Amino acid sequence: MQGKSLKELAEHVGGEVRGDGGMMIKAVSTLQEAGAGEITFLTNKKYEPLLKTTKASAVIVAKPVETDAALLITEDPYYAFMQIVVLLHGHRKHKKVGVSERSSVAKTAKLGANCNVYDFAVISDGAQIGKNCCFYPGAFVGPDVKMGDDCIVYPNAVIYDGCEIGDRVIIHANAAVGEDGYGFATYKGEHHKIPQIGRVVLEDDVEIGACCTIERATLGDTIICKGTKVGDMVAIGHGAKIGPHCLLVPQVGISGSTTLGHHCVLGGQVGIVGHIKIGNMVTIGAQSGVAHDTPDGTALFGSPALEANKAKRVYASMQHLPEMRKSIRELEKRLGELEKADDD
Amino acid sequence: MQGKSLKELAEHVGGEVRGDGGMMIKAVSTLQEAGAGEITFLTNKKYEPLLKTTKASAVIVAKPVETDAALLITEDPYYAFMQIVVLLHGHRKHKKVGVSERSSVAKTAKLGANCNVYDFAVISDGAQIGKNCCFYPGAFVGPDVKMGDDCIVYPNAVIYDGCEIGDRVIIHANAAVGEDGYGFATYKGEHHKIPQIGRVVLEDDVEIGACCTIERATLGDTIICKGTKVGDMVAIGHGAKIGPHCLLVPQVGISGSTTLGHHCVLGGQVGIVGHIKIGNMVTIGAQSGVAHDTPDGTALFGSPALEANKAKRVYASMQHLPEMRKSIRELEKRLGELEKADDD
Amino acid sequence: MQGKSLKELAEHVGGEVRGDGGMMIKAVSTLQEAGAGEITFLTNKKYEPLLKTTKASAVIVAKPVETDAALLITEDPYYAFMQIVVLLHGHRKHKKVGVSERSSVAKTAKLGANCNVYDFAVISDGAQIGKNCCFYPGAFVGPDVKMGDDCIVYPNAVIYDGCEIGDRVIIHANAAVGEDGYGFATYKGEHHKIPQIGRVVLEDDVEIGACCTIERATLGDTIICKGTKVGDMVAIGHGAKIGPHCLLVPQVGISGSTTLGHHCVLGGQVGIVGHIKIGNMVTIGAQSGVAHDTPDGTALFGSPALEANKAKRVYASMQHLPEMRKSIRELEKRLGELEKADDD
Repeated sequence: MQGKSLKELAEHVGGEVRGDGGMMIKAVSTLQEAGAGEITFLTNKKYEPLLKTTKASAVIVAKPVETDAALLITEDPYYAFMQIVVLLHGHRKHKKVGVSERSSVAKTAKLGANCNVYDFAVISDGAQIGKNCCFYPGAFVGPDVKMGDDCIVYPNAVIYDGCEIGDRVIIHANAAVGEDGYGFATYKGEHHKIPQIGRVVLEDDVEIGACCTIERATLGDTIICKGTKVGDMVAIGHGAKIGPHCLLVPQVGISGSTTLGHHCVLGGQVGIVGHIKIGNMVTIGAQSGVAHDTPDGTALFGSPALEANKAKRVYASMQHLPEMRKSIRELEKRLGELEKADDD
Repeated sequence: MQGKSLKELAEHVGGEVRGDGGMMIKAVSTLQEAGAGEITFLTNKKYEPLLKTTKASAVIVAKPVETDAALLITEDPYYAFMQIVVLLHGHRKHKKVGVSERSSVAKTAKLGANCNVYDFAVISDGAQIGKNCCFYPGAFVGPDVKMGDDCIVYPNAVIYDGCEIGDRVIIHANAAVGEDGYGFATYKGEHHKIPQIGRVVLEDDVEIGACCTIERATLGDTIICKGTKVGDMVAIGHGAKIGPHCLLVPQVGISGSTTLGHHCVLGGQVGIVGHIKIGNMVTIGAQSGVAHDTPDGTALFGSPALEANKAKRVYASMQHLPEMRKSIRELEKRLGELEKADDD
Repeated sequence: MQGKSLKELAEHVGGEVRGDGGMMIKAVSTLQEAGAGEITFLTNKKYEPLLKTTKASAVIVAKPVETDAALLITEDPYYAFMQIVVLLHGHRKHKKVGVSERSSVAKTAKLGANCNVYDFAVISDGAQIGKNCCFYPGAFVGPDVKMGDDCIVYPNAVIYDGCEIGDRVIIHANAAVGEDGYGFATYKGEHHKIPQIGRVVLEDDVEIGACCTIERATLGDTIICKGTKVGDMVAIGHGAKIGPHCLLVPQVGISGSTTLGHHCVLGGQVGIVGHIKIGNMVTIGAQSGVAHDTPDGTALFGSPALEANKAKRVYASMQHLPEMRKSIRELEKRLGELEKADDD
């Protein structure tokens, strides 16, 4: 790895250098761990004190700061950081193996050019796969799955029959896409399985974290729209529609038939009930529970969720509950005495 | 798919036709997406307005409604819907492959008639499997597992050694059944693993969702009784006993040695502590946390959980906390002035 | 299994016998299920009434109790119980198969002595594995992974490229270690993947439950320190550092860049936000949500989490919220009348 000069990096991200633009940068690292020849970044104020002690050769920042390191100043340091990591380190490389003899590719499956199907990966009957896709060991692609180009299916991820996957979709290890929706008709105390004849559709540029479970729809489709990034261990119910460019962080659960608009951001362990409509650009704080339709642009927090600013006040007050209760009892006593005195 | 006449469908479910009983129905679809030749259903009031716009040929309903579609009237539309999906579409078909040469079936394992063991599925030593079972690629059946008839083990689902599985059990992709219970004895600051010598027993007609984790018992059995349906990503602790015909929806967690009665219904992300007893027909709202024994028929909500009606009032009041606090301060001030006036 | 005499067991754990020390004990069982020739234990007061009905031949206890069974008295019955289960039953035995011809071990991978690599397990290029390790079917060890001795990787567990695993580490079925951290730079409404060039380090004696997801760091390492036991379905974010000898029970979620000290105990479904510091010996009750730095030795409970004793009082008061609200309204009314009377 030869690296790039700081000046080259600055040009790459459209930023400006303060310091020696000619210095060579070979790697990206954290403020704490970076050393000579490495660049780091500051986007979280919390880490500002580390600027004084960092051994990094350069720091990506939004505005001039005091530090011994050279500066790469740019409007959006986090985006610049991403561009520089891609430039210097790149994304994971996948070994070129073609279709391994020890994989299982059905005769009726179609694979585009330059796919890698590793040992013990399975492509079932009728599957139609685009080009440049990678299927790691144990990856399972069910019958009649359709998949676009440049997808990566990591080890032991499972795509059930008939699902449709766009281009540049990434599915991490041990995720399940298209398992049966949780649908049972209860009759005389017994639960009867409803065949889940719908599908899951993952649009372009969706990423699905490890151990996610995306239920297929009972009827029609469960959809995750383009550009939405789903963290690890997220559960999506049957028939849910997640709009484009949402961020669902780990352990979120979204119940069946619920719809989310675009650019929603859901914190960890958020739960949303079924059959409701969450608007566009809604942000929901970690562990919140949402049970009602939510208009565009709302910020929510709490379980049950309230408008976020209100929730902050409510939870701040909550700490005072025991003393409030005591105050009420005292007020009652004092008032009783006053009333008695007044009666006399 | 030729379909059935509406009249035939009505007879199949014991319902009554309003409209043209002779029309052919080929498929089941949603109110929104159904077209000519398709039947849909109404069970959730929320979707009633769609009756006016649906393009479905027929709708399954509990009582006459205004719509252009023909009606199939029946007491329990959801159950009828289930029956009709089964009739018209059926459950998932599994390719008949017998025992693939690329699977791994131990010589000492016994397989009943008509089992399918797909490529890269593993049946370990001493396993005893009934007839008509399917083991998808990557499914792992550990040593000495006993399994009944007509089970389906989806890709990469894992059953550890010695577990016992009934008839018609379905285990979805990437679930783990019988992994070690979380049991450690802490001594001088170190945690020592307690061999988990118990098992997991899944009785007849149990369904286990994708990415579930069902711990084996330390001693004795972790049991999920007949007919209980477990959603995706549910964690069951060692030694827990889940009664028959329960519904545990996704992301529920039940700690070790806790018992549930029959016909309990647990909402998403519910957590239950260990060593407690939940009665029969207990319903617990989403995200609730239960820490105490609960009598039969109770409805609970909240974290920590309260009786559901009480919880509703509590959470409704909670929104008013900031103003309540303000009111108390004002009351104190006003009362103080009054007391002062009285003293004068 | 011949078993051991009660006297031998007592000597093994440094305890004392009350009763017939010569009786042979063949197995360990629960108070409820134990029979003749079996030993059980009492550590949870809740189960004390079972002492009267147990059919066990002996019971491990901390002090003399009334029961028909013989007693093995020892200071720490749970630790003694663990020692006796290990002595009488042992840990799981793994079939010796060597390197199966049906596994996939890269030529450039190095395996220590006495490893078992079962059918369909994968060891990728450049991996360096110590001795006595077991790789169950479907286990995936990515390129350049380093692993110590005596590790067990259960079926379909996945270790991504470059991770480092210590000695005696156990990884349960369908867990993912080292998948990409949830890191995206959002620019003009689109989320751009940041290559996650860091690793996961699991130190000695760490155990990872089934279906866990341990994200690799963006830069540097996600670390789980020695002796920490992670329950099923725990999600750890990129760059988190979990100190030694912690207990993280199932369904816990820890966000990126957060650090935990040593001997922390986290209850089920606990969530911790990113970029905070939890001290040593912190205990956090089930379902709690922690958003702030927490000093050593703190006990927390609730979402948002409060100091545990305070939280108990707060949640106890919370039940009275509706009546408190009513009381305030009554107080206002009574006070208003009094004020009016005073004015007159």
